[in-house]
Amino acid sequence: MIVLFTDFGRNGPYQGLMENAIYRIAPSVKVIDLVADAPSCDMNASAHLLAALVSNFDQGTLFLSVVDPGVGGAREPCIVCADGYWFVGPNNGLFSVITSRAKEVCWWRITWRPESLSETFHGRDLFAPVAAHLALDVANIDGLAELSFDAKPLIEESPYRVIYIDDYGNVMTSIVAEPVARTAQIKANGQLLPYAKTFSDCGREQGFWYCNSLGLVEIAINGGSAARELNCVIGDRVDLIKSISS
Amino acid sequence: MIVLFTDFGRNGPYQGLMENAIYRIAPSVKVIDLVADAPSCDMNASAHLLAALVSNFDQGTLFLSVVDPGVGGAREPCIVCADGYWFVGPNNGLFSVITSRAKEVCWWRITWRPESLSETFHGRDLFAPVAAHLALDVANIDGLAELSFDAKPLIEESPYRVIYIDDYGNVMTSIVAEPVARTAQIKANGQLLPYAKTFSDCGREQGFWYCNSLGLVEIAINGGSAARELNCVIGDRVDLIKSISS
Amino acid sequence: MIVLFTDFGRNGPYQGLMENAIYRIAPSVKVIDLVADAPSCDMNASAHLLAALVSNFDQGTLFLSVVDPGVGGAREPCIVCADGYWFVGPNNGLFSVITSRAKEVCWWRITWRPESLSETFHGRDLFAPVAAHLALDVANIDGLAELSFDAKPLIEESPYRVIYIDDYGNVMTSIVAEPVARTAQIKANGQLLPYAKTFSDCGREQGFWYCNSLGLVEIAINGGSAARELNCVIGDRVDLIKSISS
Repeated sequence: MIVLFTDFGRNGPYQGLMENAIYRIAPSVKVIDLVADAPSCDMNASAHLLAALVSNFDQGTLFLSVVDPGVGGAREPCIVCADGYWFVGPNNGLFSVITSRAKEVCWWRITWRPESLSETFHGRDLFAPVAAHLALDVANIDGLAELSFDAKPLIEESPYRVIYIDDYGNVMTSIVAEPVARTAQIKANGQLLPYAKTFSDCGREQGFWYCNSLGLVEIAINGGSAARELNCVIGDRVDLIKSISS
Repeated sequence: MIVLFTDFGRNGPYQGLMENAIYRIAPSVKVIDLVADAPSCDMNASAHLLAALVSNFDQGTLFLSVVDPGVGGAREPCIVCADGYWFVGPNNGLFSVITSRAKEVCWWRITWRPESLSETFHGRDLFAPVAAHLALDVANIDGLAELSFDAKPLIEESPYRVIYIDDYGNVMTSIVAEPVARTAQIKANGQLLPYAKTFSDCGREQGFWYCNSLGLVEIAINGGSAARELNCVIGDRVDLIKSISS
Repeated sequence: MIVLFTDFGRNGPYQGLMENAIYRIAPSVKVIDLVADAPSCDMNASAHLLAALVSNFDQGTLFLSVVDPGVGGAREPCIVCADGYWFVGPNNGLFSVITSRAKEVCWWRITWRPESLSETFHGRDLFAPVAAHLALDVANIDGLAELSFDAKPLIEESPYRVIYIDDYGNVMTSIVAEPVARTAQIKANGQLLPYAKTFSDCGREQGFWYCNSLGLVEIAINGGSAARELNCVIGDRVDLIKSISS
């Protein structure tokens, strides 16, 4: 299975052209169009969002991940295998959260090039064909790429940041929720927000944080838009305030 | 075949995570992502919209229907079979228009629970796996649910309401068009609108009602936005004014 | 393979109902939902956009193309075969750029009609079933349509126009880029724009034109919205200014 994770948007032909580039090589592979609105020019946010999604999928899944503001520039195209999941995309930091959390990581530099490579759409011309050939048979990697031991861009886990804002104005952060005590508070734009299990546990217009369905700390306001009320945008810093035990 | 009917929106990973939750269990089932913008917090509107769509599909189709403002609260998850169509989702009124119009209806309470159930995304964790197991084999229902004869929420057919507004500003109502005489008028926000067969039968900027492609009365303005001109939002009341025969 | 090219939008059930209408007849055909935001009431723009997309696909691909402001009016439904690609949709100019550029063209008038034909959704009721029957077997055309030698609407290649604007505000034109000298300039709303290979070759807020991933001249501003800065909308005229050689 190939999962698309891009910042191309749902408008225009771009996601469909990616699917077609896959099907021309691997007609019977299943494609899930997972995310088309990854944060465009914020690799930190996109890297955290991608990392939070992976565990929803079975091992062996290949993530065709294209958030690539430097397309046509010096960044290298790469293949990554991390704890049994596969990733194809630009080596610009997009895979750094996944790899820094994984136990076993292997990197390849993609050496294969298509006959015709556009300046602006390596997703269609380079990354999708490589992903399709890998999905057909992982052994194809020998003709596509070479093992690489170079340093790769790293993204800091802290300070914590806003990484996604949904249509309701809920504010997803890069904080993994599982180890956070439910007595902790989240500070966003100077405001302190307590934990609540879910929306129905809060009064109307009350702000709170909860463990979202991707396992991350998310800030919401019951019946309102947290992004608007707290004036948050992607990339903003958020802080975890551990409560003082009495 | 599984048809998705949700209010999750096209942004974010939510529709894709639903598809993945299905494919993990039933890799060869076909999924159609039909509606992702069902009216979020208006069960009346969503229930009428779902009911209007069903007859487009073959009997045996399963509608994975998740408009679930009370997720994590007291509403029960359920399976419904109505005149040969199958529905999986929350028992919060979403299926009440379908069941009140159907000749044969059967309800089950879903008793199966996943190992891990998030507070906010029962679509992925509970409803999608149940739908996938049913799509594999209807006989699987015995391990998933138990027959239920409890009262279930009902939604009134009248008064008539606005149930959907498309990107052009056309205003869909809950009125089934077939039995309505073409001499009748529709009253919305104090204005009376006559029938026209289609847009090309109207002068520019003329308001009218017509039988839309789902079989419902829809209000439009040729070359304009009926929602804006008539100041309509989802949930607004509309009236059917039968003409006095002369 | 069937490729959807429409102006129905991603909201609402319309793309999903098209897919279902195909699958009911041809359950195993692959469908790519390529474009749902073709310029609605600008056949020139839609015809150029469709023509620019075709070469991404393998010969034999069928484009189910529905931009149909005159639905329910006098325009004829048609099937076109142009250089090995197939098209099904309204004969209203949508296929005129493709056919004027193709070496071999064949037109058919669709004579088949469904039992029930809505006034406003011929995409679902007429064009999708015809496309599905053709995708099953091209020989089915004999029961669906008859050869036609009538004149068909033509769209002028010049003057050049704006045909699409993406979410970033990049402005796609109808100018095929390959034969254009890189010394040429593009004039849009009185401003002259030079060529640049890609975004990273430009200073911030600098306007330029480049060869986009569909092979067309596209206008962009590095770090800004060309559509907003140049006040461009779909249908606007753009000019190609050939430089005077020194």
